[in-house]
Amino acid sequence: MAEQPELTIQGWGPHPTGGSTDAAGDRAPGLEAVVPKAARRHLAKELGWTPRHTPPVPVAEIRLAPSRLPAPARLALVELLGEENVRTDRESRLLRAGGKSYLDLLRRRAGDATDAPCAVVLPGTTEETAALLALCSEHDVVVVPFGGGTSVVGGLAGVDPDDRPAVALDLRRMASVRELDVPSSIVTVGPGMRGPALEEELGRQGLTFGHLPQSWEFATVGGYAATRSSGQASTGVGRFDELVTGLTLATPSGVLELGHPPATAAGPDLLGLALGSEGTLGVITEVSLRVRPKPTTTSYEGWSFRTWAEGLAALQRLARHDLLPDVVRLSDVDETRANLLMSGSAGARVLRGSLRARGRGEGCLLVVGWEGLPDMVRARVRAGSALLREGRGVRLGRTVGESWRKHRFGAPYTRDTLLDAGLLVETLETAATWAALPTVYDSVRRALRDALTTGGRRPLVMTHLSHGYPTGASLYFTVLADRDEELPIQQWLGAKRAATDALLAAGGTLTHHHAVGADHRPWLEREVGALGVEVLRAVKTRLDPKGICNPGVLLPD
Amino acid sequence: MAEQPELTIQGWGPHPTGGSTDAAGDRAPGLEAVVPKAARRHLAKELGWTPRHTPPVPVAEIRLAPSRLPAPARLALVELLGEENVRTDRESRLLRAGGKSYLDLLRRRAGDATDAPCAVVLPGTTEETAALLALCSEHDVVVVPFGGGTSVVGGLAGVDPDDRPAVALDLRRMASVRELDVPSSIVTVGPGMRGPALEEELGRQGLTFGHLPQSWEFATVGGYAATRSSGQASTGVGRFDELVTGLTLATPSGVLELGHPPATAAGPDLLGLALGSEGTLGVITEVSLRVRPKPTTTSYEGWSFRTWAEGLAALQRLARHDLLPDVVRLSDVDETRANLLMSGSAGARVLRGSLRARGRGEGCLLVVGWEGLPDMVRARVRAGSALLREGRGVRLGRTVGESWRKHRFGAPYTRDTLLDAGLLVETLETAATWAALPTVYDSVRRALRDALTTGGRRPLVMTHLSHGYPTGASLYFTVLADRDEELPIQQWLGAKRAATDALLAAGGTLTHHHAVGADHRPWLEREVGALGVEVLRAVKTRLDPKGICNPGVLLPD
Repeated sequence: MAEQPELTIQGWGPHPTGGSTDAAGDRAPGLEAVVPKAARRHLAKELGWTPRHTPPVPVAEIRLAPSRLPAPARLALVELLGEENVRTDRESRLLRAGGKSYLDLLRRRAGDATDAPCAVVLPGTTEETAALLALCSEHDVVVVPFGGGTSVVGGLAGVDPDDRPAVALDLRRMASVRELDVPSSIVTVGPGMRGPALEEELGRQGLTFGHLPQSWEFATVGGYAATRSSGQASTGVGRFDELVTGLTLATPSGVLELGHPPATAAGPDLLGLALGSEGTLGVITEVSLRVRPKPTTTSYEGWSFRTWAEGLAALQRLARHDLLPDVVRLSDVDETRANLLMSGSAGARVLRGSLRARGRGEGCLLVVGWEGLPDMVRARVRAGSALLREGRGVRLGRTVGESWRKHRFGAPYTRDTLLDAGLLVETLETAATWAALPTVYDSVRRALRDALTTGGRRPLVMTHLSHGYPTGASLYFTVLADRDEELPIQQWLGAKRAATDALLAAGGTLTHHHAVGADHRPWLEREVGALGVEVLRAVKTRLDPKGICNPGVLLPD
Repeated sequence: MAEQPELTIQGWGPHPTGGSTDAAGDRAPGLEAVVPKAARRHLAKELGWTPRHTPPVPVAEIRLAPSRLPAPARLALVELLGEENVRTDRESRLLRAGGKSYLDLLRRRAGDATDAPCAVVLPGTTEETAALLALCSEHDVVVVPFGGGTSVVGGLAGVDPDDRPAVALDLRRMASVRELDVPSSIVTVGPGMRGPALEEELGRQGLTFGHLPQSWEFATVGGYAATRSSGQASTGVGRFDELVTGLTLATPSGVLELGHPPATAAGPDLLGLALGSEGTLGVITEVSLRVRPKPTTTSYEGWSFRTWAEGLAALQRLARHDLLPDVVRLSDVDETRANLLMSGSAGARVLRGSLRARGRGEGCLLVVGWEGLPDMVRARVRAGSALLREGRGVRLGRTVGESWRKHRFGAPYTRDTLLDAGLLVETLETAATWAALPTVYDSVRRALRDALTTGGRRPLVMTHLSHGYPTGASLYFTVLADRDEELPIQQWLGAKRAATDALLAAGGTLTHHHAVGADHRPWLEREVGALGVEVLRAVKTRLDPKGICNPGVLLPD
């Protein structure tokens, strides 16, 4: 297996085209290397932003609090796991300090890692994990499960209302395939396994699990399950929670073995309680997943719609007939324009020219991807394309589709460069029924624009529909703005608050695939009701009576 | 809307071809009218059974205990719901006494309805239901939600460990469409609505929900949700729990509004706790469902496989490529032979002759049904049929498929006739991964045969695969045997116990679609583990602290 890349402390991962390298990983390439001149001019004008150089403080200067792990707890942990699996060195702790949200990066870039865990512990089995949780319950030590470390909602915040010391429970020692049941199309893996490694092993049997979130290179299977992740092909292969056929959850009160494939009517669904539990009920130590044969045909295409409303209407018709492609991404006018500018390739220039020649302006770009058996892909493409054409879509061909595919994991790397140049860069997402979607779209955009327009600043809000369902779809918003260097955190918190209130009021869900984390938990009660929160609390109290499992996340105080 | 038929007190529903009629509904037609001569001879020989006449006691002689509902509770209920919605008359109580399992029918046929509820209450809204639950909590009155009354697992047992008086909460006053969101393909209905009425309303908009369990004529939407029902087309349209996009659960502690279509990552799935809760957490007072366009093409066909193993292997290949038909039913050799004999039609005789001429014996009959848009059905049929042929299946054509379709809801009516003729008739079901399926099949059949073979008696065990999934399938067993007239209940309990132990040991689930009820609850801990049961108890305690919601069901004591 190829060596796995590590996330960097103050940004995303190592930049293949990065400039200087330090102990903490690569530095992002400069703005000129990433954003074409025309796009820089467009952004500067739209945002009221002057590109500037605002690099992070050197890694060596990041502030880290001394470890508060009590000696008896440390001793007990070492006895359980061995000295090499209880780490308190600076780099281990820095690398598990929080996740990769804009707010996380702001703190780390400013040299603040005072929220880092007191130690990093690495159990190797379910039994060790269960023993560790019992031990930490006894010693009043908070446990924050750490998979890929890519949370963008504060899922690794580790903030305890009682201010107890916290350890990060890193799952990388449980990262192998444990069983592959080919007849039943089920693979069972350790939670620390990452997507690329799993796909490599499955590929040898002609199989795939097909889950491709933007955090693909780093995120782990356990993290996918704990956060109800969805990937770029989830419209076709299903959200991650739909792929899970079973899992093992180690809790301070014992071990739960959940799920009974292929289906059961034996009472309420306990598996569904573990999925999305974000480490608050315990630690996922094994996951069984549905796999499928590798597609023998793939077809990625671009389409263009004159307006967002026309694009939405066409996708809704596909959805209602179960004809949605495996990958479906409809960008609104603002995102389409920005993407064409950012791409800067000859192809993009030709595309812009061609669209303008047809009198369409840039319109709204739709990327669709179809995968599977040749005959079925052919039939689906034919039936789906007919509906897209009826909905006034214009086919742009495969170049656009393949270009999207090539750059599909690029955005978080670009973010590092934009942060270096004085920008606020963040995303948020939701989902709603087809009926509610237009209102959600309008009100979130309005809320973000209102909150981030001050003085000469104006945000750029770009939106795409990223996953389709028979009953609705998800919306993914990307926000760029000139960063308020005095109060950058407050600048974003205000916008986030306004957008979240707006999307809930319009009928959207609090989160479609980023999870709740620390950032969304003030709104959980609006999502599931006060009594719903009480039910979750009752479950947590039964499994984690001392409240050591990822406090500060998911459940409101 | 057409008038809805009522279940009869001592059997299934009114028999269209029934003989005499009494106050309790129709009597089943005689054995000669239902079972052809060749089949009677075959059964008599196989089972060591002599057809005899063992009719139920007259309805007027059924024993009913006096209502124990305390006067203050009755008064409070009348104040809340009105006199006409608090019923204690004999017929109302008899009609809500238990469900329709073999054991239920044995008791009712023998004249025993001492387990009938003390009263039947009929709330009209969510608010009334919530108030009723609070009131019954206060008065220590047990509440058993009553939808269609078709439970075959003792889901309406109403047995309270503290022997408190029980009322049946009949949901028929909440039985209308409340909202139809056509763009989002979601219908919201009252829990008491039955399938035929809902399909009729949806049909006017060219829509269907497509859920077709054998209890179709009587069962309700709320019951489907409370028991995680599956229907004959669930392989294609999805199990009922997959169709539910949201529901309202009235509990003694308040009302929960659950579900957020189309999908959410906002924490653990509370909707999945209400689905399958079987009335133990509260009462489902509203259900939102995914609907879809009525299929414009349907194609039902018969296929034949020489052996069960070959049929299973072919279906597994379809499953792995997502090519399973919407309806898929593979009968084993015993069921195929019995069905051909029971049918007695000219067509069945021709089919038997034709199969024998090909040297296949009766083999294993597969019924497949494909539904949807013409082009997609054509592509699926082509790809699926190719795999079936590669798996050594022989296509028998549409007559067999259409014949199955015509008789799809007939079995429970036939049961009444067979009960009148001295037979034990019962079914049980499970599901397992494709890898585990052959072992589950063998061990359940062995357990049933061992348990029911005594003296000159030998059971006939017929099996079909009734639903397919990518990772496995369900198995449905039908058992016929000469009834032990001395100890009929013990005769079946012994067989059921042996079969359940066997299927769990072989890796099957406790129930694929009949739910847990009273009959399966001793095994729930083996299904979800002791800690899993504790989690369910914690949820129940939070929502139903006095334990008035359908005690005796789902959770072991």
